Amino acid sequence: MLQLDDLDRAIIRLLKGDARLTISEISSNLGKPESTIHFRIKKLQERGIIDKYTIILGKPVKPKVAAFLILKVEKPVIEDFLERYLEYIAKTLSMLPNVLMVAKSGDDHLVALIGEETQENLERFIEDNIKTIPTLKEVNVLPIREFKKGEDVIGFLAEI
Amino acid sequence: MLQLDDLDRAIIRLLKGDARLTISEISSNLGKPESTIHFRIKKLQERGIIDKYTIILGKPVKPKVAAFLILKVEKPVIEDFLERYLEYIAKTLSMLPNVLMVAKSGDDHLVALIGEETQENLERFIEDNIKTIPTLKEVNVLPIREFKKGEDVIGFLAEI
Repeated sequence: MLQLDDLDRAIIRLLKGDARLTISEISSNLGKPESTIHFRIKKLQERGIIDKYTIILGKPVKPKVAAFLILKVEKPVIEDFLERYLEYIAKTLSMLPNVLMVAKSGDDHLVALIGEETQENLERFIEDNIKTIPTLKEVNVLPIREFKKGEDVIGFLAEI
Repeated sequence: MLQLDDLDRAIIRLLKGDARLTISEISSNLGKPESTIHFRIKKLQERGIIDKYTIILGKPVKPKVAAFLILKVEKPVIEDFLERYLEYIAKTLSMLPNVLMVAKSGDDHLVALIGEETQENLERFIEDNIKTIPTLKEVNVLPIREFKKGEDVIGFLAEI
């Protein structure tokens, strides 16, 4: 059973907000000795609870407009080829820098998150690079108007 | 015009991979003086190109199964209320800990990413907490089978 106590959770929340916080800052913030904080973070890392430290990119470099795409792959004559079609499209998409995320869903769907500088670029990208993919049956575009939760995901996934 | 040179990009890529790298490690890795690296990182932060430092949670604490939900909100009799319906549902969803992301799309859609421990929990959550939402017209569930890009998004968005 996974054991995370209140102190572990508090440390994780602080580091999520700012991973540059020093042991000493976390120690003052939570009113616990530095040695305790140091030990807990070490343990959280060793247990794989904290997996990585990373940066989130900001406004000047992250895409201004984004959309989710729901793609449905055509069922091939030889049904065994369906997974190959799906894999091929997923791989092709994942190599494009403005495709931020790609996931296979069920046996014939892909969900992708794409980002662009402008609405026009986004539409052109979908027309030129998505709708032209052979073996694609349906493309459903869901432009993001506003995030209510998880907004940082764009700056997290953005490539430069 | 935004100016990022090769050195800036190289620093950003290293920090994306591991934000704990020291100035000295980045300096050796890129073959540039520590003072240069220090100055560049300072500038990247000041310009808001590096927005935040954060942690990604690992396997023991992140949801094992995840799904995208595409929700379509019912058009109310008084059409002006549509945005209020959408806002209400978005807000309700965003308060649930296993709803990792919520975004408004177009004038009557929401896209959400949800995570759970097991497939059964996920299904129960959708039945009990999503499909019961009044004013919801359509719920489309896209279970994620495999990420091809952006897999870390779950550990990035997970809450503890």
